[in-house]
Parts: sequence; C-alpha cells; structure tokens
Amino acid sequence: MYYGGIEAGGTKFVCAVGDVHGNILERVQLPTLTPEETIPKVIEFFQHHKIQALGVGSFGPIDINVKSDTYGYITSTPKTAWTNYPFLQALQMELHIPIGFNTDVNVAALGEVTLGAAKGLESCLYITVGTGIGAGAVVQGNLLQGYSHPEMGHILVRRHENDTYIGKCPYHKDCLEGLAAGPAIEERWGKKGVELAHDSKVWEIEAYYIAQALMQYILVLSPEKIILGGGVMKQQQVFPLIREKVASLINGYVDLPPLEEYIVPPSLGDNAGITGALILAKQSEV
Amino acid sequence: MYYGGIEAGGTKFVCAVGDVHGNILERVQLPTLTPEETIPKVIEFFQHHKIQALGVGSFGPIDINVKSDTYGYITSTPKTAWTNYPFLQALQMELHIPIGFNTDVNVAALGEVTLGAAKGLESCLYITVGTGIGAGAVVQGNLLQGYSHPEMGHILVRRHENDTYIGKCPYHKDCLEGLAAGPAIEERWGKKGVELAHDSKVWEIEAYYIAQALMQYILVLSPEKIILGGGVMKQQQVFPLIREKVASLINGYVDLPPLEEYIVPPSLGDNAGITGALILAKQSEV
Ligand SMILES: Nc1ncnc2c1ncn2[C@@H]1O[C@H](COP(=O)(O)OP(=O)(O)O)[C@@H](O)[C@H]1O
Ligand SMILES: Nc1ncnc2c1ncn2[C@@H]1O[C@H](COP(=O)(O)OP(=O)(O)O)[C@@H](O)[C@H]1O
Ligand SMILES: [Zn+2]
Ligand SMILES: [Zn+2]
Repeated sequence: MYYGGIEAGGTKFVCAVGDVHGNILERVQLPTLTPEETIPKVIEFFQHHKIQALGVGSFGPIDINVKSDTYGYITSTPKTAWTNYPFLQALQMELHIPIGFNTDVNVAALGEVTLGAAKGLESCLYITVGTGIGAGAVVQGNLLQGYSHPEMGHILVRRHENDTYIGKCPYHKDCLEGLAAGPAIEERWGKKGVELAHDSKVWEIEAYYIAQALMQYILVLSPEKIILGGGVMKQQQVFPLIREKVASLINGYVDLPPLEEYIVPPSLGDNAGITGALILAKQSEV
Repeated sequence: MYYGGIEAGGTKFVCAVGDVHGNILERVQLPTLTPEETIPKVIEFFQHHKIQALGVGSFGPIDINVKSDTYGYITSTPKTAWTNYPFLQALQMELHIPIGFNTDVNVAALGEVTLGAAKGLESCLYITVGTGIGAGAVVQGNLLQGYSHPEMGHILVRRHENDTYIGKCPYHKDCLEGLAAGPAIEERWGKKGVELAHDSKVWEIEAYYIAQALMQYILVLSPEKIILGGGVMKQQQVFPLIREKVASLINGYVDLPPLEEYIVPPSLGDNAGITGALILAKQSEV
C-alpha cells in the first residue's frame, strides 16, 4: 500500500512515494518556480506511481480550515506567484485520490510523533530554525489547528542585552524570526551561520531567543516533547545552551521531563517532513 | 438528569447542582480553609442531592494526566495545606460517581465554548486576570492538555517603556502575572484596580501587557475566540485598548476575525466556571 507525499518549500518541492513506516521508494526534488511550471511536474511524478492517497506539507500561510471556501489555498505568501493559489484543488483535479493538506511544520511534527523523536506520545512541538522560523504541533494526537494554523515563529521575545541588531521581520522587526532565523544571524554578524560555528557569543544570543520562545510554547501548550530542526539547528552546540536557559527562565515553575530528553533534534533528520506527508496521506483516506 | 459542579478557588469553593444547559438548581459557597475543614462540607452538600456525575475545576497546579500516579492531586501549590492533596480521590471515596477533574480555567473555557461567548466553535481561550493570571483552552473540541495543563499566565512580556515596577511573580518577577495581575496593579500604583478606574495610564500599561500575551497565544494556538474574565477585566474600558494594541502588534501578519467579536468578556459572566464544571461532569460519564 503506497502513498504519496509532498514537502512544498519556498525553494524546493520534495515529492516521494513510500509507505507509512517511513520507507521511501522513490523521491524527486524540484525547484519552486511558478505554479504553472512546478505543479505539472509534481502531478506527472505521481501519475507514474500507483498511490492510494497523497499528503501535502506546504509552506504558507495556507488555508487549512475545511469549512472555508479557500480551503487548500496558499493565501498571502510573499512569493507572489503563489498568492491565492488553489494548491489542493490543482492536485485534486488531476490525481483523483484523497489528499491531506497541512503546513510543512505541522506535517513534520506528525512525522516525528508517529515515527521519530516523539514516537508513542500524544503531543509534540516541531520547530524549524532556518530561512524562517516555523513550528507545528500535535496536540492530543491531532495536528494543531484553530481559526487557522499556528504561526509561532513570530512571537515576541525580549532583547538580549548585548544585541543591538534591529531585526529582519518585515511585519514585526524584532520578533523571534526577525532576530533568530538564519538570515538574521547572517545580517547581524556579516557571515553565514555555518561560518560562525566557533563564535560563542553568536550562539549565546541565539540560544537566549530560542529559549524564550520555548518557555512561551511550554507554558501555552505543554508539549510532551520539543523537537528543534532546520539549518541553524545543525549547530549542535546550541542545544545545551538552550536547555540551560530554558531551565533558568522557567525557574522551576513547571515540572518538566529531564531537558536532555525533552528538547531534542529531529530523529528523522531531514526526512521528518516527507515522512509526515506520507502519514498524512494515509490519514486523509478516512 | 442532574450533575454536580465544583469551582475550587484559592479563596472559595463554589459547589452547585444543575444541568448541562446552564441551569443551576442550588449553589453554596464555602471558604477555602484546609482540606480537612472544607472537603467534608463539599461532600455533605453533594450527598444531599441525587447527581449523576461531578465536574471539578480546581486551582492548581494539579495533575490532570490520567496515566499518572498522582492524577487528581493538587500538586505544588503555595497554599501549603493543599500541597500534594489527593483531591479527586477524596471526593471519589465518598461519592462513588464519575468525576471529571481539570483546571479552573480549562473548565471555564469549556463552559464558554459550550454555552457562552464561544458557543458553536471548536476552540477558545479563556483568560482570567484576577489575583493571578491563568488561561484555559479548548482546542479542536477538547480541553487543552499535554505533558501537563497550560500555565499561560507566566509567559514573558516586554516591559512598557513607562513602567519601572519590578514585578510580583515569586518565580519570574516580571512575567505577565507579575506585571499585570490585580496585586501587581495594586502594588505598582498603591491602590486597588477598582479605585484606579479613571486613571488612563494604568489601563494603557495593563492593556499593553495583556495585548502582548494575546499576540503570543494567537500565534501559538490560533483560538477562534478569546474570552477575558476575572476581577481586573471588570474594567470594561480596557477591552478597546487591548484590541487596538493586539492589532498594532500583530501588524496584519495573521488574518483574524473583527477584533470586537474576537476579544470579548465571558458571556456567562461569573458562571463560566461552574457551568463548565457541570458540562465536565457529563463528559466524565463516558
Ligand atoms: N550548518 C549550519 N549552521 C548554521 N546555519 C545554517 C547551517 N545550515 C544552514 N544554515 C542556515 O539556515 C538557513 C537555511 O535553513 P534550512 O532549514 O536549511 O532551509 P529552509 O528554511 O529554507 O527550508 C540559512 O540561513 C543558513 O545560513
Ligand atoms: N472592578 C474591578 N476593577 C479592577 N480590579 C478589580 C475589580 N474587581 C476585582 N479586581 C481585582 O482583581 C483581583 C481579584 O480577582 P478576582 O477574579 O475577583 O478573584 P480571584 O482571581 O481571586 O478568583 C484583585 O486584585 C482585585 O483588586
Ligand atoms: Zn515577525
Ligand atoms: Zn511568573
């Protein structure tokens, strides 16, 4: 029984065929150009395979409210070619199979809670710190959703006392994403994150912002596990700093599991999203 | 078909018998003394009524994880007589009926989503700004729960530029509760909130902190409705200030319903909690 999965990102689309145990049979990667250029290639890939259903984890913002008229659309994205694009409908028109549709980060959380670092739990938070900062969550077994999907990357943080960088978010300037995503690191220090690996003050500030965000997420959602992925989190040395700062910020107010087991990298690595998409595909059948 | 409800607060217990439509047949109010003094009176009240099941909304922190050994306990509360008190067990031992157990604020959220301001929705956030700040949430129809219950009152906020007050939280000093709960208002200004009704700078600062908290909650949870209750929120003039500041903080980044309908007082007023407790009672039967 095979399923299809799409991880639709701002720079690339990953399409895969596989099963719900994390086995991937075939995978292609396509650049994210315009919908007219990219989507026909995506459809062609899946038409060559016998799949039961498809799961899509998409960049956003997207409309995931099934009762909405624009359910399945990419909505107000800065990538203008994709603004108000009926993504789900375009796929459905050609593929005629059940399709699950959610955010890239919610789908990655689903992958990790089903087969990864949060396996066996009812809840987890999956945060990516990369070109942007986004988070998805599984709450009581379900992908978190309310009026819309979470947009946790833009929460407010307090400034680090040694940080004078103005912030990069076009909406909020110095929100979490504006201060701590990859491009903010690069603009603040004049070098890419990967080149700053040995500069401890970089990771001290980075950890301070991420720890504040985790404190807020913990107090609001109380996830059973927090998974930190994305390019910036390849800097493994930042994990212990984050854990230490989370402990000192929360200051014993809430009871938590040992932080080395609680705040962890994705155990599916870069496959969290595509694995989650295959699981979402199966869920869309019911 | 009658149910029992308990709203267990730090200063008083409200016990009621009623139905799931919000009709209350009888209600008593008891002071929160020690468990030995208070609980027998609570039990006696319910023994005089034929109820199907009981719902409890309790002050906390409490253990709401049904798989835990201390499920149903009040855990590390500063009210030392109640520390590690097996609240649910004490009731069950005498009453022999199904009992639902959750936080006071989660239960109030349940009341409002079932019969109040969020009626017909799948999600809502209920925040009380009183002696402390607490919040409960219904997410996709269920009371929010993860590793533990939410503790949203202690999230971090940025200081208002004109606020030099140090903050009152014993754990975090100037977290939301430390800066914006009733006792913080009183200590900052040297007068009770109710006496400061006409002092606009008081409510400007108060609204700034609450608006920041709402921004964080919106970005993390995306509730379909936000209900603000508790003593401090009796100051109706603070609602428009909060809405204005939420709009300017979020700055168009997420799409929201019109804020006058989105950020509202409880429509069950002071009965949100006890009404929710009766509904929780019914839910505990299944
Ligand atoms: N090893 C690394 N160390 C630090 N920063 C990195 C590393 N790899 C990528 N980044 C940064 O992460 C960002 C890209 O994030 P990534 O998660 O790889 O892609 P995207 O978010 O676009 O899907 C860039 O700003 C890049 O500089
Ligand atoms: N009308 C009011 N205006 C401003 N503040 C009030 C008002 N009524 C109560 N408060 C403040 O709210 C706090 C009590 O909160 P309340 O919600 O009534 O009780 P509790 O939180 O203990 O259940 C006190 O600090 C009190 O000063
Ligand atoms: Zn932002
Ligand atoms: Zn606090």
